[in-house]
Amino acid sequence: MARRFVYGFGGKKAAGNARMKNLLGGKGANLAEMTNLGIPVPPGFTITTEACNNFYKNNRKLSRALQEEVNGAMRNVEKLMGRKFGDAKNPLLVSVRSGARRSMPGMMETVLNIGLTEKTIPGLIKQSGEERFVYDAYRRLIMMYSDVVMEKGAGIEPQAEESGIRRQLEKIMNEMKKEKNYESDLDLKPEDLKVLCNKFKQRIKQVLKSDFPDDHNSQLWGGISAVFASWFGKRAVSYRRIEEIPDDWGTAVNVQAMVFGNMGKNSATGVAFTRNPGNGENHFYGEYLVNAQGEDVVAGIRTPAPLNESSKSITKSNLETLEKVMPDLYRKLDTYQKRLERHYKDMQDIEFTIENGVLYMLQTRVGKRNGPAAVKMALDMLKEKLISQEEAVRRVTPSQLDELLHPMVDPKAELTKKPIAKGLPAGPGGAAGQVVFSSNEAVAWAKSGKHVILVREETNPEDVEGMRVARAVLTARGGMTSHAALVARGWGKCCIVGCGDLHIDYEKKEMNVSGKIYREGDWLTLNGTKGNVYEGKLPMMETAEENVLLNQFLKICDAIRRLGIRANADTPDDARRARKFGAEGIGLMRTEHMFYGKGSEEPLFRLRKMIVSKTAEERRKALDELYPYVKKDIKGVLEAMDGMPVVMRLLDPPLHEFVPREKARLDQLAKELNISADELAQRADALHESNPMMGHRGVRLGITYPEITAMQVRAIFEAAAELIQQGRTPYPEIMVPVVAEARELLSQKKIVDEIYQEVLAKYNLKKIKYLYGTMIEIPRACIVAGEIARTVQFFSFGTNDLTQMGFGFSRDDIGGFLAEYIAKGILPQDPFQSIDQSGIGELIETGITRGRGTNPTLEVGICGEHGGDPQSVHFCHCVSMDYVSCSPFRVPIARLAAAQAALEHPAKKKTSNKKKPRRKKK
Amino acid sequence: MARRFVYGFGGKKAAGNARMKNLLGGKGANLAEMTNLGIPVPPGFTITTEACNNFYKNNRKLSRALQEEVNGAMRNVEKLMGRKFGDAKNPLLVSVRSGARRSMPGMMETVLNIGLTEKTIPGLIKQSGEERFVYDAYRRLIMMYSDVVMEKGAGIEPQAEESGIRRQLEKIMNEMKKEKNYESDLDLKPEDLKVLCNKFKQRIKQVLKSDFPDDHNSQLWGGISAVFASWFGKRAVSYRRIEEIPDDWGTAVNVQAMVFGNMGKNSATGVAFTRNPGNGENHFYGEYLVNAQGEDVVAGIRTPAPLNESSKSITKSNLETLEKVMPDLYRKLDTYQKRLERHYKDMQDIEFTIENGVLYMLQTRVGKRNGPAAVKMALDMLKEKLISQEEAVRRVTPSQLDELLHPMVDPKAELTKKPIAKGLPAGPGGAAGQVVFSSNEAVAWAKSGKHVILVREETNPEDVEGMRVARAVLTARGGMTSHAALVARGWGKCCIVGCGDLHIDYEKKEMNVSGKIYREGDWLTLNGTKGNVYEGKLPMMETAEENVLLNQFLKICDAIRRLGIRANADTPDDARRARKFGAEGIGLMRTEHMFYGKGSEEPLFRLRKMIVSKTAEERRKALDELYPYVKKDIKGVLEAMDGMPVVMRLLDPPLHEFVPREKARLDQLAKELNISADELAQRADALHESNPMMGHRGVRLGITYPEITAMQVRAIFEAAAELIQQGRTPYPEIMVPVVAEARELLSQKKIVDEIYQEVLAKYNLKKIKYLYGTMIEIPRACIVAGEIARTVQFFSFGTNDLTQMGFGFSRDDIGGFLAEYIAKGILPQDPFQSIDQSGIGELIETGITRGRGTNPTLEVGICGEHGGDPQSVHFCHCVSMDYVSCSPFRVPIARLAAAQAALEHPAKKKTSNKKKPRRKKK
Repeated sequence: MARRFVYGFGGKKAAGNARMKNLLGGKGANLAEMTNLGIPVPPGFTITTEACNNFYKNNRKLSRALQEEVNGAMRNVEKLMGRKFGDAKNPLLVSVRSGARRSMPGMMETVLNIGLTEKTIPGLIKQSGEERFVYDAYRRLIMMYSDVVMEKGAGIEPQAEESGIRRQLEKIMNEMKKEKNYESDLDLKPEDLKVLCNKFKQRIKQVLKSDFPDDHNSQLWGGISAVFASWFGKRAVSYRRIEEIPDDWGTAVNVQAMVFGNMGKNSATGVAFTRNPGNGENHFYGEYLVNAQGEDVVAGIRTPAPLNESSKSITKSNLETLEKVMPDLYRKLDTYQKRLERHYKDMQDIEFTIENGVLYMLQTRVGKRNGPAAVKMALDMLKEKLISQEEAVRRVTPSQLDELLHPMVDPKAELTKKPIAKGLPAGPGGAAGQVVFSSNEAVAWAKSGKHVILVREETNPEDVEGMRVARAVLTARGGMTSHAALVARGWGKCCIVGCGDLHIDYEKKEMNVSGKIYREGDWLTLNGTKGNVYEGKLPMMETAEENVLLNQFLKICDAIRRLGIRANADTPDDARRARKFGAEGIGLMRTEHMFYGKGSEEPLFRLRKMIVSKTAEERRKALDELYPYVKKDIKGVLEAMDGMPVVMRLLDPPLHEFVPREKARLDQLAKELNISADELAQRADALHESNPMMGHRGVRLGITYPEITAMQVRAIFEAAAELIQQGRTPYPEIMVPVVAEARELLSQKKIVDEIYQEVLAKYNLKKIKYLYGTMIEIPRACIVAGEIARTVQFFSFGTNDLTQMGFGFSRDDIGGFLAEYIAKGILPQDPFQSIDQSGIGELIETGITRGRGTNPTLEVGICGEHGGDPQSVHFCHCVSMDYVSCSPFRVPIARLAAAQAALEHPAKKKTSNKKKPRRKKK
Repeated sequence: MARRFVYGFGGKKAAGNARMKNLLGGKGANLAEMTNLGIPVPPGFTITTEACNNFYKNNRKLSRALQEEVNGAMRNVEKLMGRKFGDAKNPLLVSVRSGARRSMPGMMETVLNIGLTEKTIPGLIKQSGEERFVYDAYRRLIMMYSDVVMEKGAGIEPQAEESGIRRQLEKIMNEMKKEKNYESDLDLKPEDLKVLCNKFKQRIKQVLKSDFPDDHNSQLWGGISAVFASWFGKRAVSYRRIEEIPDDWGTAVNVQAMVFGNMGKNSATGVAFTRNPGNGENHFYGEYLVNAQGEDVVAGIRTPAPLNESSKSITKSNLETLEKVMPDLYRKLDTYQKRLERHYKDMQDIEFTIENGVLYMLQTRVGKRNGPAAVKMALDMLKEKLISQEEAVRRVTPSQLDELLHPMVDPKAELTKKPIAKGLPAGPGGAAGQVVFSSNEAVAWAKSGKHVILVREETNPEDVEGMRVARAVLTARGGMTSHAALVARGWGKCCIVGCGDLHIDYEKKEMNVSGKIYREGDWLTLNGTKGNVYEGKLPMMETAEENVLLNQFLKICDAIRRLGIRANADTPDDARRARKFGAEGIGLMRTEHMFYGKGSEEPLFRLRKMIVSKTAEERRKALDELYPYVKKDIKGVLEAMDGMPVVMRLLDPPLHEFVPREKARLDQLAKELNISADELAQRADALHESNPMMGHRGVRLGITYPEITAMQVRAIFEAAAELIQQGRTPYPEIMVPVVAEARELLSQKKIVDEIYQEVLAKYNLKKIKYLYGTMIEIPRACIVAGEIARTVQFFSFGTNDLTQMGFGFSRDDIGGFLAEYIAKGILPQDPFQSIDQSGIGELIETGITRGRGTNPTLEVGICGEHGGDPQSVHFCHCVSMDYVSCSPFRVPIARLAAAQAALEHPAKKKTSNKKKPRRKKK
């Protein structure tokens, strides 16, 4: 049987349903579902995503079979609407819209009013009685069609955006408005529009070397092809890269009978959310425009009016609400939105149009929301028993949670400042940055390491790249559902829109805010939660620790997750913060980090002295001097984490890293060691390595200089002993880094055992609870993990180095090629961001399986930076690790990701502490 | 049943036999075997190697059970000898000797004349009628016993060797000789010896704080314990490390009735080989000393006489032969040696003693031989049908074969020079080096990269380290069986012994040779094959290619081996040499190496120009200029290897490696590129990397600069096309290096496919035979080898980089710790010398299994430097590689090692070209 490419809907009956998103796209599937739910939807049909893939296989041609199916479906729509496509008397107009599996707002093309031709215009005028409306629709069709189908769809690249056909036509229209002294598009008379349409057609012919098609079928096929073509348009491809959407998903095309919100004062169009997507509050919330088409709302050209009172308070608009203007229709709308939310059990983002007093629902989809809203909705819907606890956990993405952890403007600092402007709080959190006025500038400035705030009249999809790199986005126009607001919210980015006091001069690269000029490079601070814009750079603060809802939500996560969560922390302060974020221990304390960023340079100096020591005697002396500092810091961290495990990594980096570079410091060092500067330079040179990452570091230092290991281990045990005497319960885990071979660990263990006994005796203790373990970060260590595990009690995977050596990628040197690797699709993503599961992941799995094979009680964790990456946390869950460890700020993310992993893979029980050796996964 | 620890032999009957070497040690097993063969052996018994291990388990104590067994065995010996151990009237004396599974010449201890006490001396004098002999034996016992048992065996470390008890006693003896004006030990009268023994005992008491034991049983137990203890003596341990003998083999102890070669003129002792160990000729060959104990021959203190005429010509001695002096006994000896060689089917190294006209065989073992001798004997014995073809291949070790490949002094240069001295040709080949006079100096000089010749009066086991690092060894004393000769021969090292014209002054670090002084650091050249010493540094030449016997032997190897052998070669000259050595193809041509070491700097300059190009255009221009040079070199190698495969690796090193360092060159480059010196410096800096080994190199360059790949691939195909047009059959294999991911290879394959088609068209050819493949040298590549193999036709394992990244060992930076790793036993050997089979080896195996799993016809080879290491060749055979590739000079070694691997693992058939995917080894 031939594949079916077209699925119709309309008349309370649809061939598709909401579960068919992959085939029909999100919009198509939901149009079908709404139809089935008895909600009034203009009839139409969906062309499947498979047809899109076929289009590309077929060299960008629509197949004969598809055309026949479309024609058949069109007959059905004609029947339901009682109009005929291309008919002179009673013509049917249709819209052609994209609809991918996942929403890609504004990334692909739409053509409205298809079917309007010289032949059908008179009939439509007769039917509607609105000549102006018809010519305005024709004008819109010509503008969109020439842009979307004739220019972009045909692959014609205008030299600059300004020379694109759409801008040229807009210019013609603006000239006429100026000439006639019109303020708004609405002032254009039917005669004006007729003239305009003709001028448009002439310009199109002149610029694009072809005629605007005056045939309804040509318009339809052109529209469908253009939507398919837009799937591989530059913007869409770039968006997919960012959002990691595969190319082969394809887009569906929805062809639907046109209904008009711009057929006069009794018509309207609007966009709404069943709950507030900005804070999650349970109020029906939306905006509408009288006598307008849907694009007018989204494009942010006219500021829309609030749907109801609760929307009013948010949009800060005093325009009249739909509730007041058309109360009956509003009630119907409210009924539909409630039905939809109950049906979908999630907040819906809906579009509607009122044509001459008749309400049509054009779209419903799960609404995008920001992080705070996601958490609140999840908790509320759980309370409302709309969803289960598990579902609540699934409802918040790690990146949404991340938004809650974003910096906020310090409220105290804010109190002292008066905002220079106010706008709509479209994206929460705070940000400070230097002003730029174009997407390209934003990208360039950000590349050079600057924090920028992108300021635009309004944004459009061309601005996506700049929005991404900006710390915050600020627009002069548009509402909470404008492009800028939608995109920024999706990314959890600080954003203020509709800030009417801004008057931007793109050419001069400056803006006038209430009489004061701000130029490119000036600093602004935005409070995206309140919508306030401040001059200068205000201090930020972290608020996540105090967020009650967040903590409530994370507690639910904690009940579901199996993975333990620890934090990487090097100082007592870090450790305390980690605890506040919910860390259950320290997974990595880099003992050498304690030497940096201190008030005193004393410890670092002693360390350096040790590093450049030449004889064991010199070194021992320097170590003795260093000892009290090391012990103090270790004790501080153990104390802060009282009762919880703290993994302490012995000295890891190659010694050359610590050699000072400044002459004064070198001289001081030489003097202290009683050697000449030349001698010191020689010693420092001797430490230099060609490939330090694979040089004399980690356990290799411990083997050639056992006295270094001894000093550190003594500091750990003595710090613990002193805490025990003070009634605390320290729990150090001693971790040996850079191990490639079991015998390295045996050699270090001798030292640990010896010093353990010495310290017990010295403090008259029977026992100090501790573990001896190793970092698994060398590929060979994964292979010989079975041998290694016989000597140790825990493994902690150092996935940074494992990725470096497994790939042969020096993290410091990938700049030359990694971007190109990702751009060319050779690697799907940066393996330092997210664990490369097919390669490095298998090494990890091998290491765990073999390690637990010889030591079933082996504790296994991860302490690379991957520990805070949600995908990697999933992986760690699936390979049965005991815990992940990440930076304190990522701990909440890890708690959520771990819970979601447990929901997705419930079978992956904690398998440590089992007696039976496990088998390697096939 | 309790384990048996003691195996007796004697009276034509022995409890053991030659197959029991693991238990009885080589010496003990052969004493048993000889006894069983009816050859006269002094009766005795062997204490097993298991008893040795027990001794260590038992805290260095001899168990009660062992003592009882020994006592029982001793009774048996007493019965066979008709004497009693410790008996005053007719006392039995015994020797106590070590005997490990494999011979470790001079590394462990021996005590002779045990059983001589104040009580037994009179009886022995009466029995032998030789008072002087008895007191001389007593003197020897005291010297050996105090040294071996009382000092070393008790773990007393003298502060310097000079202060050791043995040296002190020797000094006492020398003082007496001086005082009495005696020339030789033989001049000492019985009365002198009595005085000496008393002085010895006093000094021992004084130095070692204990009495020399005057009880036969104490002497016996002390001797046995000391031999066991010597297994973990410093020298033995160091020898085992070098020879890779496991510690847990242990040593056996042989206790045997003493027979005396020093009982007067009718007594003698000697050492012999059934064939000449220096050149393999089939002549009975040996040395003897009248009125001497065996140690006198081996120690090289007295120059021994030749056994027979054929020995005479070799030892260059005019002393009377045993054949002449004792013709009957010589005939008996000759009968025994023939019987032994026929029995063991291999050349034997035998020791004998004649006591008062009675011949005893003391030892037989497989004789050590040098490389040329090993090859000749193997071929001769094959011809004699003594051994099979397979056995002949087993008879030559790779390191023996290596000796044949050693440099020889250029004969033409030698003709023009007169030797400054002549000695015995103890180790073949030639060597030039700077003179040093102590083992420590040799080690120090060699460490700093110098070539040294170690010159000693005579060597002893303390000199082993220095001998190892020296290019050659030269001694003033000793014969062909002296310590120096034995050790040097075992290692295939150039060595001349017994060079009497040398007069060494250790203190002044100089020597006088016929009146001329040579100081430390002066250059000498040795021809170890002739025994000639030359002043200065003579040129060397290679002779292996011309060696007829070698080629004959290697042809036998070729018939047996399964592995193919290729060579690594970068130039046409290298390629031709490789072919001469028997290479069947080139396994690695490093295309970038062709730029170095040329007469003209032109190509290197063009390469540099390409490297520092900034735009694709600049780079393309530089590549165009470079192109003709690259093509010419590639063509040269393909031509030299006509009909054989040549693996050509695309550009591998990070570009920074090629940036010139000299100012003149930099200026020239800047000028050519029309940029400032600063700009050039900036570009060069931009190429600098922190860890270049894991940086922007190999395929990563090919992906970011596809034009580089294109240039190289075009050169390969055009070179091949031109050769085809000239009637040749080139066979390039294009190898992409540093691959971590299959998509890297897909991306490069597009370029290869495109250019292939272009070149076919240009030269109007239908086909150029070639393969597309990759180097597997990144750990991840082994993991994802299944994916990778779908794109390529061959894998070549780059084990250098695989070892670097698998271990995280930068080869340039391991200097700081690797030596310590090996000394401390953390690694058994340098993993860059021999493949680390348990770690890196498993990665390789995984790579092969997965690669052949998806591509059963995949060709698999190795091109790291391990390809010439015999152990690694065995490994490659076992993991079913198709070929190994190594440096041209190692090709013969690889041919032998591959044949031996095939004999050892006959089941490992060539498994490529099979349809069935293979499973990973458990």
